[in-house]
Amino acid sequence: MSDTNTLRETIATLKYDAAGLIPAVIVDKDTKAVLMVAYMNESSLLATVETGKTHFWSRSRQKYWMKGESSGHVQEVHAIYTDCDVDTVVIEVTPHGAACHDGYYSCFYRRLNTSTGQWETQGVPLFDPKDVYKKSQ
Amino acid sequence: MSDTNTLRETIATLKYDAAGLIPAVIVDKDTKAVLMVAYMNESSLLATVETGKTHFWSRSRQKYWMKGESSGHVQEVHAIYTDCDVDTVVIEVTPHGAACHDGYYSCFYRRLNTSTGQWETQGVPLFDPKDVYKKSQ
Repeated sequence: MSDTNTLRETIATLKYDAAGLIPAVIVDKDTKAVLMVAYMNESSLLATVETGKTHFWSRSRQKYWMKGESSGHVQEVHAIYTDCDVDTVVIEVTPHGAACHDGYYSCFYRRLNTSTGQWETQGVPLFDPKDVYKKSQ
Repeated sequence: MSDTNTLRETIATLKYDAAGLIPAVIVDKDTKAVLMVAYMNESSLLATVETGKTHFWSRSRQKYWMKGESSGHVQEVHAIYTDCDVDTVVIEVTPHGAACHDGYYSCFYRRLNTSTGQWETQGVPLFDPKDVYKKSQ
């Protein structure tokens, strides 16, 4: 059992931006790959700690979302870190399925080719988004 | 030699925030550890690609800075990735010295103890900041 008041205070003392958000870098616990970067507010970070599954605040849709709520591809939380400036969190997870709504294991599936100056796709999708996000399309 | 016009266009088409900034997650190429998260604008990202060393925009000091300009702890760039929303970059580097101005290898040196609800420091500093940042203190 965590001390909920202490936890709330710890979360409240992070540095959020003007919109009350903090970037969360989601990392695969085993491969250490950066899977995605999304935004949390105090409530979604608290929900992440308390449920052990990543919860975010969508800036485009202005609503809470749990990773995997549509796709089933939830992320189990193993560890949460913050930095020297307490304005970012890194969260180590065990991903269940792909992180990216485009179907890739990681959202960072494009690498800059410095010779051509263009992005190049790395790897192949694990699923077809049309099959997974049927309801929302 | 990169095609500079194409590169400039590629960099210009990323999604920057209202202040013209994009978060950059800096990762150790070998250990895959997240070393730091800082912000870049178009010019500092272009400088990062062209010099092969990480350059940022400081929000607190409102100026450009190259990682290592004071400490000598530069970061050699190996690869640059962007995500599905093109609003974040991940940069793999070889770090020369510590990433953190507090002296730690990574800025993310505090881990949340979910039992106590408090941050706990992991590891030990690689240097004493007072010795490295003499000029600015």
